[in-house]
Amino acid sequence: MSEKLKPKTLPGFMELLPNEQILFNKMKETIQKTYEKYGFLPLNTPIIEDAKILLAKAGGETEKQIYRFEKGENDLALRFDLTVPLSKYVTEYYDKLSFPFKRYQIGKVYRGEKPQRGRYREFYQCDIDIIGDGKLSIINDAELPSIIYSTFKNLGFDEFTICINNRKILNGLFSSLGLNENSAQILRIIDKIDKIGADNVKEELLKETQEDKVNVVMQFLKISGSNEEKIKALEDMNITDETFVQGLNELKTVVMYIGTFGVPEENLKIDLTIARGLDYYTGTVYETFLNKYRNLGSVCSGGRYDNLTEYYTDREMPGVGISIGLSRLFFLLTDNGIISAEDETISDALVISMGEEYDSVAKVATQLRNNGVKAQINIENQKIAKKFKYADKLNIPFVIILGEDEIKNNVVTIKNMTSGEQKTVTIEEAISIIKEK
Amino acid sequence: MSEKLKPKTLPGFMELLPNEQILFNKMKETIQKTYEKYGFLPLNTPIIEDAKILLAKAGGETEKQIYRFEKGENDLALRFDLTVPLSKYVTEYYDKLSFPFKRYQIGKVYRGEKPQRGRYREFYQCDIDIIGDGKLSIINDAELPSIIYSTFKNLGFDEFTICINNRKILNGLFSSLGLNENSAQILRIIDKIDKIGADNVKEELLKETQEDKVNVVMQFLKISGSNEEKIKALEDMNITDETFVQGLNELKTVVMYIGTFGVPEENLKIDLTIARGLDYYTGTVYETFLNKYRNLGSVCSGGRYDNLTEYYTDREMPGVGISIGLSRLFFLLTDNGIISAEDETISDALVISMGEEYDSVAKVATQLRNNGVKAQINIENQKIAKKFKYADKLNIPFVIILGEDEIKNNVVTIKNMTSGEQKTVTIEEAISIIKEK
Repeated sequence: MSEKLKPKTLPGFMELLPNEQILFNKMKETIQKTYEKYGFLPLNTPIIEDAKILLAKAGGETEKQIYRFEKGENDLALRFDLTVPLSKYVTEYYDKLSFPFKRYQIGKVYRGEKPQRGRYREFYQCDIDIIGDGKLSIINDAELPSIIYSTFKNLGFDEFTICINNRKILNGLFSSLGLNENSAQILRIIDKIDKIGADNVKEELLKETQEDKVNVVMQFLKISGSNEEKIKALEDMNITDETFVQGLNELKTVVMYIGTFGVPEENLKIDLTIARGLDYYTGTVYETFLNKYRNLGSVCSGGRYDNLTEYYTDREMPGVGISIGLSRLFFLLTDNGIISAEDETISDALVISMGEEYDSVAKVATQLRNNGVKAQINIENQKIAKKFKYADKLNIPFVIILGEDEIKNNVVTIKNMTSGEQKTVTIEEAISIIKEK
Repeated sequence: MSEKLKPKTLPGFMELLPNEQILFNKMKETIQKTYEKYGFLPLNTPIIEDAKILLAKAGGETEKQIYRFEKGENDLALRFDLTVPLSKYVTEYYDKLSFPFKRYQIGKVYRGEKPQRGRYREFYQCDIDIIGDGKLSIINDAELPSIIYSTFKNLGFDEFTICINNRKILNGLFSSLGLNENSAQILRIIDKIDKIGADNVKEELLKETQEDKVNVVMQFLKISGSNEEKIKALEDMNITDETFVQGLNELKTVVMYIGTFGVPEENLKIDLTIARGLDYYTGTVYETFLNKYRNLGSVCSGGRYDNLTEYYTDREMPGVGISIGLSRLFFLLTDNGIISAEDETISDALVISMGEEYDSVAKVATQLRNNGVKAQINIENQKIAKKFKYADKLNIPFVIILGEDEIKNNVVTIKNMTSGEQKTVTIEEAISIIKEK
């Protein structure tokens, strides 16, 4: 061969080194195990779907970003989220599923975004959704934050805040003020409050509508205090709009049940400015922030939607769900030094020989594995120092060394790679030492 | 919405029901945990690559089957195996990896084959490979069958046979007979021996070359007996061709070490007819069969290759690897009734209330989860009988029922859904009962 190709992963595609991949997989497994703890069923839908199916709901930005192509006579596309495949799935297999249908799906989705640091074209979403057949109890909206809570606790975080709101409160407020027409624009302005401050929000709102109405919106936006105090303040607004009242009742119920599901008060906050997009969510909405790193944005979002499957069936299927964008979360956490993959390893021990005692290496490694130890071997014709360096680079905590003496006496020499301590023990003792760590 | 889309998964794409998915995931996890037990590092390369990279080695059938498309100015393709991405990876990250580099990758690959029953266009491959930098000890070729052995044992199989051969023996035999030119055609004929029998193979071979040469090939094909007897018979052929001698020595070494790695003799068989394709493998080759279902074909195959990365670098990187085609294996095992997903479940228990005691449901479910029980709730406004049916359809083994009496007395009623037995106990006792099972 003469002409060589330059091996290059495409820009915008995450590809990790092994130690990073170990950490990524641990996080993925933690999320999966937590979702399963709540009884969610696994799904694994295809990455390729009929373009018609995927594009039923898409439009605007999403449609431009979608990977779409033809193969033979088929018009195909790569999924850009896990929600559209879920709508397809529950309609296609409706007769075989039990409702409420609770499923999780952890998988890659594709969006041809402009590549930029920390934004990926292929990324993992970790979703759970509860889908009702006709109706779905509001208490489900309270169980999901408890899953967010468990997930982030299990991922090793303590200081995070699940922010909750109900779209009906915002919609009802606008409706009570006769602002339905401008609601999209007003939401957009409100959404900037963290960035531009209350005064600028007020100024922008005044361009949209009269001062008395703006004052009501500002009164609403200034509601503060504990969750209880916020609910009290909402009640004190004396708004009789039906949607507002329903939203407030739902929020009260959900907040009360979230506590019952074991989420401490400091991890839950009513945030009346959260809207999460304009037309998808219809009731409860969630966002989650790491307290010390609020600038990273929401690390887990979701909410309630009235009708998952409207493009496929007249049957009403309301749902509520959350999603963790794992690839982006992993990037943010490692890039900001919040977690580190530096010491990650797969193997508990590396088994090597002083000389060519490879059959002893094979035997001892097999015995270790049969006793639950993750044991790697290195049986290459290399100097012993090189093999230690190999263990070191792979962060393997123990090296088991076999030489003539060890074999003769039916023992092994075990070296703790962290402390440097080395001793000669029986293989059973070596197994205990490794397992203790 | 008036016009509804028919929700339809594309033909050739595996999409499972939840109970099937649970079983599939268990198998996938078993394979992953076994690979990790041997110290293999995880990789997760992108599904989309630059078409140039993927097509460097492809050709013929593969090239026709590949999903290739443009997005913006990029010529893209979906990976059709996990080996080409591995070659890219080890060349791209060479400086950051430790050799021998041992990695596993479990992921979906894509081939636009004609859809037919049990053949998928999107399917899982579960690969491990060991890549050497310049050289790689032959003992690695013996460790892989021990991983195949552990994997299928852990998957619940006892009666399976790992068949092993060495391409150098075949190549050396042909070379010693001056048959290098026809070797591709002869291999193709030999490969049919199981289907058409020895006599027909002989007849076809006679069309290719002289009778004395055919007789040597037939003598070779008739070698039988134990592994030891086969090796003895090969030695007795007194072939001095260098490649043949090297292949025979490698095979002897590998078979001996496979025993040392703990693989029982009944699970390993030298099969001198295995070639595994014409130009990829260069030494040891493997195929694995379930003894009672040999007709299903090989369930795990692989072998040794001289140079993984020849398209990207002049550096020599020999490797040895195996692959399990999990989607197809899962289809074959379920379709033939060898395994069944019928009773699979995620949840250990379903928590329900007699009436509207939903806060008790939330509390008890939380307590169960905090004690390691996978607990689902059903808090819909449904009749109790419907909730039992829900548990039954989802194969959930226990239902925890909360009514006024239970709540007053701080106990729960637990129903064993298999035996129908129902009793009222403390929540701690309920946890013990569930965990015992």
